Amino acid sequence: MHIHQTVVFRHKPVIIGSYSIVGPKEGKGNFGRYFNYVMKDDSFGEESYEKAEKKMLQSAVIGAIEDAKIKPSDINLMLAGDLLNQIISSSYAARYFNFAYLGLFSACSTIAESLAIGASLVDGGEFDTVVCSTASHFSTAERQFRFPLELGNQRPPTSQWTVTGAGACVIANEGKGPRITMATFGKVVDWGISDVNNMGAAMAPAAMDTLLAHFKDTNTTPDDYDLIATGDLGKLGSEILIDLMEDNGIKLGLNYKDCGQMFFTRSQNTLCGGSGCGCSASVLNSFIIQKLRSGEYKRVLFLPTGALMSTTATQQGETIPGVCHAIVLESEECAKSENKKQKQKMQNKKEVAKKK
Amino acid sequence: MHIHQTVVFRHKPVIIGSYSIVGPKEGKGNFGRYFNYVMKDDSFGEESYEKAEKKMLQSAVIGAIEDAKIKPSDINLMLAGDLLNQIISSSYAARYFNFAYLGLFSACSTIAESLAIGASLVDGGEFDTVVCSTASHFSTAERQFRFPLELGNQRPPTSQWTVTGAGACVIANEGKGPRITMATFGKVVDWGISDVNNMGAAMAPAAMDTLLAHFKDTNTTPDDYDLIATGDLGKLGSEILIDLMEDNGIKLGLNYKDCGQMFFTRSQNTLCGGSGCGCSASVLNSFIIQKLRSGEYKRVLFLPTGALMSTTATQQGETIPGVCHAIVLESEECAKSENKKQKQKMQNKKEVAKKK
Repeated sequence: MHIHQTVVFRHKPVIIGSYSIVGPKEGKGNFGRYFNYVMKDDSFGEESYEKAEKKMLQSAVIGAIEDAKIKPSDINLMLAGDLLNQIISSSYAARYFNFAYLGLFSACSTIAESLAIGASLVDGGEFDTVVCSTASHFSTAERQFRFPLELGNQRPPTSQWTVTGAGACVIANEGKGPRITMATFGKVVDWGISDVNNMGAAMAPAAMDTLLAHFKDTNTTPDDYDLIATGDLGKLGSEILIDLMEDNGIKLGLNYKDCGQMFFTRSQNTLCGGSGCGCSASVLNSFIIQKLRSGEYKRVLFLPTGALMSTTATQQGETIPGVCHAIVLESEECAKSENKKQKQKMQNKKEVAKKK
Repeated sequence: MHIHQTVVFRHKPVIIGSYSIVGPKEGKGNFGRYFNYVMKDDSFGEESYEKAEKKMLQSAVIGAIEDAKIKPSDINLMLAGDLLNQIISSSYAARYFNFAYLGLFSACSTIAESLAIGASLVDGGEFDTVVCSTASHFSTAERQFRFPLELGNQRPPTSQWTVTGAGACVIANEGKGPRITMATFGKVVDWGISDVNNMGAAMAPAAMDTLLAHFKDTNTTPDDYDLIATGDLGKLGSEILIDLMEDNGIKLGLNYKDCGQMFFTRSQNTLCGGSGCGCSASVLNSFIIQKLRSGEYKRVLFLPTGALMSTTATQQGETIPGVCHAIVLESEECAKSENKKQKQKMQNKKEVAKKK
């Protein structure tokens, strides 16, 4: 069932396994103790950073399957994407698995896109068990999107640091774990920002658009969530989002956080914070899922944003479109409890929508 | 319901509208009279070929919505992808529409990926009406993947010609038109081909893998289809596929065709034939859908292949992985008729699978 942009899952697909892997700098950041694996060096024993990124994604998929205590042959489908041209980290990693494969791209929002499609396919009964994954690497992103690493460019104050990391999770139609209860599919929004060193400002309008759609479609408010987490708006972008939401009459309180802003410590000097597909994917598949499993978080709205530009588009004078897909995750207890108030709210909303 | 890699759609989503647009050279090819629109020049009035490609995709989406005789506001979701880095043709085109958007990438198999996911979301009840689209442009692909256009490189005999074109179709849960009855989700297959001027050979094993999976999962044979159409294996690739299938005991007969091989006339000198996302997408959304609408084709197996490499991967000595997603399309009459034999076959297959 969908209400405008939001799909409400009937059977609430379960995240039965998850895994996160990050680079050494990331391991020293604020989420260090939550990650499953911290690499000793960011080449991961490979001869290129691109191959290291592929290996991280591969390791995350294997780790999530092991965490789910299932066999690789139980997986029906892999959904993955990354920032590299032609998403090679994902497609090349997929060679090693005997799974059907769907390649996705919505930049740093890809982990949410994969969860939204994956949960839909499991909920609709098309597949029983799917694995979703994304990765990014500081050194591959930097040299593809910005400057050669050897150039040692100075970084402007609005810039962010691409996280070297990957995250993966296994979604199934039965089992124990946090549930995916809703997904809001985002629109492409472009407010004319063209500064590739200010991704936060480019993506904030997309986050606003999806948040407004989500609250409207589901008749919820920020207070209905223990955590509202954007992906990598960073320090500036998340401040812009708070302002934009306030302009729309919605106050994002202390339960609003941005994975990128929280990622590194102050002394790590990453300016506006972390970014990249691996940023939100590694935080989701460590910190967030662990807190949903323990019951500390009951309901989380996870909405990473993506900046959809390429170097070619930028060189041709194009501005930067953003997109933001949102996922609602609930702890097992929360999803099981009837939560009558919530259901009633949704029902009322549906009736109002029908009348219109 | 899925049998291994194949999803059988319960409600058989309908293709209620379709549209194809191609460049002038393509308009002079074998499918010329089937296309909805042939551009007078391949810049399409834009200042760059990338912007022309984006505009083609946009036009195809608008055309398909008009053909479906619905309003743009009836569309819930757009699924699109292309060959350009960060799929900018699709994402930038999506800015102009007020639809939720999913970016996809499986190279020249993307139109089948979008149909497989789109049909699943409509069949599962997540959305009512979605639009699927892909595009490619000779001049953007050539300069991104191979050489600057100005270089005027000689083309090796195994090379293919990227089609300048786009196709789009609207899938809905009700209405008149050909039905999508099944989708086989492909695996990534890499047999070690590294020649970027021999895409056909790189992709043929993926086509074989998906064809074998499809016939096995659905208990069908080539004779069950009026047309089995690969996307852009080209002359050499489709010969390799025929050989590979014969090695597996399956004879592909005269009902097997390749869109790329058929695309251009002999005198157009495209060596092994057409290729690109726009090749299979424009043929599907013109020739194939028109013949399904007229009832000339009753059941079509459409399975474009994609080569998942990037220039970076190639420069790092990687081989070329392929992927192939397959879609079964049936004419309205065929889908409606009980087709007991087919259903019985599927049922038997399901029972055998369950016993295993």
